Amino acid sequence: MKPIIILVNPQLGENIGMTARAMGNCGLDHLRLVAPRDGWPNQDAIDAAAGADWIINKAQVFETTSDAIADLQQVYATTARSRFMVKPVITPQEMVVQLNTGLKTGILFGCEKSGLSNEDVTLADAILNIPVNSEFSSLNLAQAVLLVAHQWFLSQGIESSKTEINPASKEDLLHLFNHLETELEQVGYFFPPHKKPEMIQNFRNALVRAGLTQQEVRTFRGIIKALSK
Amino acid sequence: MKPIIILVNPQLGENIGMTARAMGNCGLDHLRLVAPRDGWPNQDAIDAAAGADWIINKAQVFETTSDAIADLQQVYATTARSRFMVKPVITPQEMVVQLNTGLKTGILFGCEKSGLSNEDVTLADAILNIPVNSEFSSLNLAQAVLLVAHQWFLSQGIESSKTEINPASKEDLLHLFNHLETELEQVGYFFPPHKKPEMIQNFRNALVRAGLTQQEVRTFRGIIKALSK
Repeated sequence: MKPIIILVNPQLGENIGMTARAMGNCGLDHLRLVAPRDGWPNQDAIDAAAGADWIINKAQVFETTSDAIADLQQVYATTARSRFMVKPVITPQEMVVQLNTGLKTGILFGCEKSGLSNEDVTLADAILNIPVNSEFSSLNLAQAVLLVAHQWFLSQGIESSKTEINPASKEDLLHLFNHLETELEQVGYFFPPHKKPEMIQNFRNALVRAGLTQQEVRTFRGIIKALSK
Repeated sequence: MKPIIILVNPQLGENIGMTARAMGNCGLDHLRLVAPRDGWPNQDAIDAAAGADWIINKAQVFETTSDAIADLQQVYATTARSRFMVKPVITPQEMVVQLNTGLKTGILFGCEKSGLSNEDVTLADAILNIPVNSEFSSLNLAQAVLLVAHQWFLSQGIESSKTEINPASKEDLLHLFNHLETELEQVGYFFPPHKKPEMIQNFRNALVRAGLTQQEVRTFRGIIKALSK
């Protein structure tokens, strides 16, 4: 299945347009934007798309990363920096093999200035690391998308087995997280308070890594409900 | 040996800068420019290079493509369009294997609007064709450079045998062409006159394809001299 390209807080319309052009060059169609800085639609984006209008016109805009990935089953977070998270780190070449398994997939790209937040990376099943010169590793946003999209393009026609696991949607998973975190809050689990984000990050990472099915998500919610009575 | 990136008649300084940035991301250093439209140096290029100043600062400017490739032994012409030339057509993945053979190599990229002229393509040993979506194949200049440079980056560390053939420099080859064409002109070979460019293209392509060594170039020049007495 074609992956969806998700730009989180993109700053320059020009980079959004260049992203659309690169996607068109590589046969990808679905672009999602999380809170683009300069609003949407954006004339700079249209100009820079150089004819990839069908991508720009049907780009979807979301307020949060969670909203943008709610209907997806598999999410990758593109990042150059090590995040010290217990999460697989793979290259685009390794990723495209997994994309041919038929799951609804999105690839997250952070904003030009600072990339993805740790919170966004935590939501992803794997970290996507594009190999580049370690002494000059800052890729332009659209260039990063191009390298990933082109790898996908090159992988087409290569046979791949369907996965046997059918993970839950990210929306179901996020409901599980919210449920768990609400209950933990109530029992005073998050202590000291300033450690809360890190604590959340740790167990979210573990649960994402589990690749829970819809049934398993229901099971866990039952467990939480039972325990918190 | 690291290939030299050669932009022929680039129009936008921004694209030159983005090219330098992409080169830096992939560990390439040597940029040559053939008659950049807006002159050189160019502030837009410096801005878009986003820190790849060492590439911009030592970029070399030439008046003609022939000048820019004179000291090279191996030249590739990047083009999306079929040129109907008897010349190998290869992908970046195939090219990088040849780059590890130790020859001094340049890769030509044409201007944003129209790409490389047939005359420039004729000078190349092979046509470099970047596989993209055939229904939307126009790559941004810097994006095209990135895809080629990144393939080079990925190929580093892969062992390759040194070539046994040591081709002449392009300068020697161009002298051979000029010698031959001058002699042919004098004997009225180019008839009808409007066919001259096509006639030149045909035998230049054949001679480039031969990968002549310096000694062979001397041999051919001796032959031309002998025949034209």
